[in-house]
Amino acid sequence: MATHDFLESAAALLGQRGFTRDPQLVTPWLTDWRGRYTGRALALASPADTQEVAALVKLCAEHRVPLVPQGGNSGMCGGATPDETGAAILLSLRRMNAIRRLDPAAREAVCEAGVILQTLHEAAAADGLRFPLTLGGKGSATIGGLISTNAGGTQVLRHGSMRAQVLGIEAVLADGSVFDALTPLKKDNRGFDLKQLLIGSEGTLGIVTAATLRLLPALADRAVIWAGLGSVADAPKLLAHAETVAGDALEGFELMPRHSLEAVLAHSPLARNPLGQDHAWHVLIELVADKARADALPALAQDLLESAFAQGLVEDATIAANEAQAEAFWLLRDEIAPAERALGPAVQHDISVPVAAMARFIEETSPEVEARFPGTRVIAFGHLGDGNVHYHVLAPNGAVPGEWEKNEGKEISAVVHDLVTAWHGSISAEHGIGQLKRDELARLSDPVQINLMRAVKLALDPKGLLNPGKLVPLAPVAANP
Amino acid sequence: MATHDFLESAAALLGQRGFTRDPQLVTPWLTDWRGRYTGRALALASPADTQEVAALVKLCAEHRVPLVPQGGNSGMCGGATPDETGAAILLSLRRMNAIRRLDPAAREAVCEAGVILQTLHEAAAADGLRFPLTLGGKGSATIGGLISTNAGGTQVLRHGSMRAQVLGIEAVLADGSVFDALTPLKKDNRGFDLKQLLIGSEGTLGIVTAATLRLLPALADRAVIWAGLGSVADAPKLLAHAETVAGDALEGFELMPRHSLEAVLAHSPLARNPLGQDHAWHVLIELVADKARADALPALAQDLLESAFAQGLVEDATIAANEAQAEAFWLLRDEIAPAERALGPAVQHDISVPVAAMARFIEETSPEVEARFPGTRVIAFGHLGDGNVHYHVLAPNGAVPGEWEKNEGKEISAVVHDLVTAWHGSISAEHGIGQLKRDELARLSDPVQINLMRAVKLALDPKGLLNPGKLVPLAPVAANP
Repeated sequence: MATHDFLESAAALLGQRGFTRDPQLVTPWLTDWRGRYTGRALALASPADTQEVAALVKLCAEHRVPLVPQGGNSGMCGGATPDETGAAILLSLRRMNAIRRLDPAAREAVCEAGVILQTLHEAAAADGLRFPLTLGGKGSATIGGLISTNAGGTQVLRHGSMRAQVLGIEAVLADGSVFDALTPLKKDNRGFDLKQLLIGSEGTLGIVTAATLRLLPALADRAVIWAGLGSVADAPKLLAHAETVAGDALEGFELMPRHSLEAVLAHSPLARNPLGQDHAWHVLIELVADKARADALPALAQDLLESAFAQGLVEDATIAANEAQAEAFWLLRDEIAPAERALGPAVQHDISVPVAAMARFIEETSPEVEARFPGTRVIAFGHLGDGNVHYHVLAPNGAVPGEWEKNEGKEISAVVHDLVTAWHGSISAEHGIGQLKRDELARLSDPVQINLMRAVKLALDPKGLLNPGKLVPLAPVAANP
Repeated sequence: MATHDFLESAAALLGQRGFTRDPQLVTPWLTDWRGRYTGRALALASPADTQEVAALVKLCAEHRVPLVPQGGNSGMCGGATPDETGAAILLSLRRMNAIRRLDPAAREAVCEAGVILQTLHEAAAADGLRFPLTLGGKGSATIGGLISTNAGGTQVLRHGSMRAQVLGIEAVLADGSVFDALTPLKKDNRGFDLKQLLIGSEGTLGIVTAATLRLLPALADRAVIWAGLGSVADAPKLLAHAETVAGDALEGFELMPRHSLEAVLAHSPLARNPLGQDHAWHVLIELVADKARADALPALAQDLLESAFAQGLVEDATIAANEAQAEAFWLLRDEIAPAERALGPAVQHDISVPVAAMARFIEETSPEVEARFPGTRVIAFGHLGDGNVHYHVLAPNGAVPGEWEKNEGKEISAVVHDLVTAWHGSISAEHGIGQLKRDELARLSDPVQINLMRAVKLALDPKGLLNPGKLVPLAPVAANP
């Protein structure tokens, strides 16, 4: 039996530590962390190095066994969960967790795919450096997963998403060959930039096994401002003003509505309202400085605050007096998701529109959605500086958790995604497509783009063995006449 | 006759302004500006808009007529010159020269492919903004050409190459469909970032017709430092120090050897040596500031200078006292190429290695090359901050211009490219591949990368009609066992 031969060969290749079919060891990784998807797998493979990954992929290609790569299993869209057929190998990269090299002079780290984000943060900090991307799941998210999903976070405004941090890549392609583009060259014009294809492709074009990442000087200080605004329309004006005044010192610009602040104040015993009065909207601004620029930071924050007042961009605002207060301001932002969850069921969307259009998008579409689904309430919060908000539609009072999302979720999401598409936005700003949004991607995308995506997928993975069923819509889409 | 039908249809489609076979109009564009390549063409097509490009490409696909896209015809590698068969249409994008939109608030410009770089500079300046990429050919280079070659220049250190300036793209694909990804989204994770494939692909995967480009606040001031160094090994130390002290204010870091300075002083009547003594190497450092940061710039430059002295990184250095002097410093850099040309024949290379390795690369390989080709002299100058220098091998005294390059050029370049490859560098840092370096690319690249490139090319241009013979090696390459 072909499967039997394959399993024997794979087990021999990877050894006891690298290959298991023990349900106790495999099962925990077959459900995504949000509990939305559960799949089955032939086995769990955990190769120790790139050569083992390459040999396994080659073996899978020979036996036509699909592979589902997985990092920290903390993705938002089921991109690392196998389907229910049980035909696939679950390929964990977690054992490949070495930082192969950290070069403080060149400010580069070569990390294997399984390095956990927080581990990289700590290694960089030990050398007076930092890796300028962070997010809630930093304790589980791996470098390979972050690259495969082109992860975002709260520092994209200044530093870009994961794509901008990747200087070089090593990946195993569908035929088991190793694509080695690890050496970072600041300038290299030898044709197509193939590593860009792998970034954000969710393991459907190749398996990222290592990457060279850029590091920056460690931060010496930050100034965190909390501002109350009368209208969401003032937020982009404040953003533009902050960009002009603070330039590259501006690293965070997060938006939250009154409803979210109230929810956090009610939910978290540690939360305090930094301002005395009530405001319709709030903005958290973070300015940062490395050692060479730390002295100028307090004056810069003060300038920004005073000029924003003078121009009527804020109703009220305050600067965190110390690091403890800065953390308290950030707590208000970080606790929104759990606080909103505690209020009841919601259908969540990770969307973006052009930065300049986001305030109007929120103002104009929220009443539309609320009118279409009576009793619901739209809460939009997050990375306004990136044109990216988390757009949650809260259930009407009395809705039954679980039931309501199941009954209404799909229709609500379709309406939100239609609106985003009409505003030339993206139905996935930072979470990816995975299996969660694949059909919506097919429904809403320009057929030219979908067909191009499919052509690339067929070229790089002709047998369709790399993370099948994720991201890439199945059938060609008829182009508009 | 098929060609006759095709020509009739193309002429009818594009009209008199958009289609000509008049040799007086076509011939000037059949030779690249360096005069290295001359081709032939069926006709010169100059569509007025994207729809006309799409219709023409569709027509070409039906009749299997190849297309050679061309912008300002100022590329360095013959990438826009058709071959000698005369089978191809020369597709000029120069008529599509509208800036469709310039949005000062969003700091974005939507430019058609034929917009000349200098035109964009002027339009941005009129709104208090700037486009942060410039190069010698700015009076002829077009946005489409700059994107297709992922152009570099003197500001890459701070702002990245053309790829980093492109927020959105519109392109016509090989089947005549229009790929519309013009809307700039700061965050968008809907799968493969297909626009990245088009950037730097030299028209072999699609025809870029328009792009959304990022703009920055105009500069209010700059400080230009000229430094004399005892050894090239001090240059990367000075660079690291400048990055630490000046951070994002550092926009230029150009290296030149004594020989180049002497050549410029002898060649250009306007050139003056900024320093009294003689130094083995020189560095030009440019610091910049927008309005919000201009006040702090003089002190920053002074700090940098003094701390560099204190650390022994420079033998001598001076800050330009005014803008005229700043221009005089830059003249020394900009005149290197003509001054070296005036000295006699040379074989030129546009190469990169990892930034940290460049000084050692120059030190170690120059004597190797000079020993291998007696009487030659290696001159390396340029963008040290990008790990990219122009590596010129000057002919021995008495060499006959034209003859010598013809006889020796290929072997010299092969040796230089072998060395670059051994140092994990790139044989094309910023000029692209075109027809000039295609065979060297095939010879020196990892077969895995070449085969991947070919797979992508076949997927996107199955009939091989887009800029045939450029960039992509012709035959599949056997992978190493």
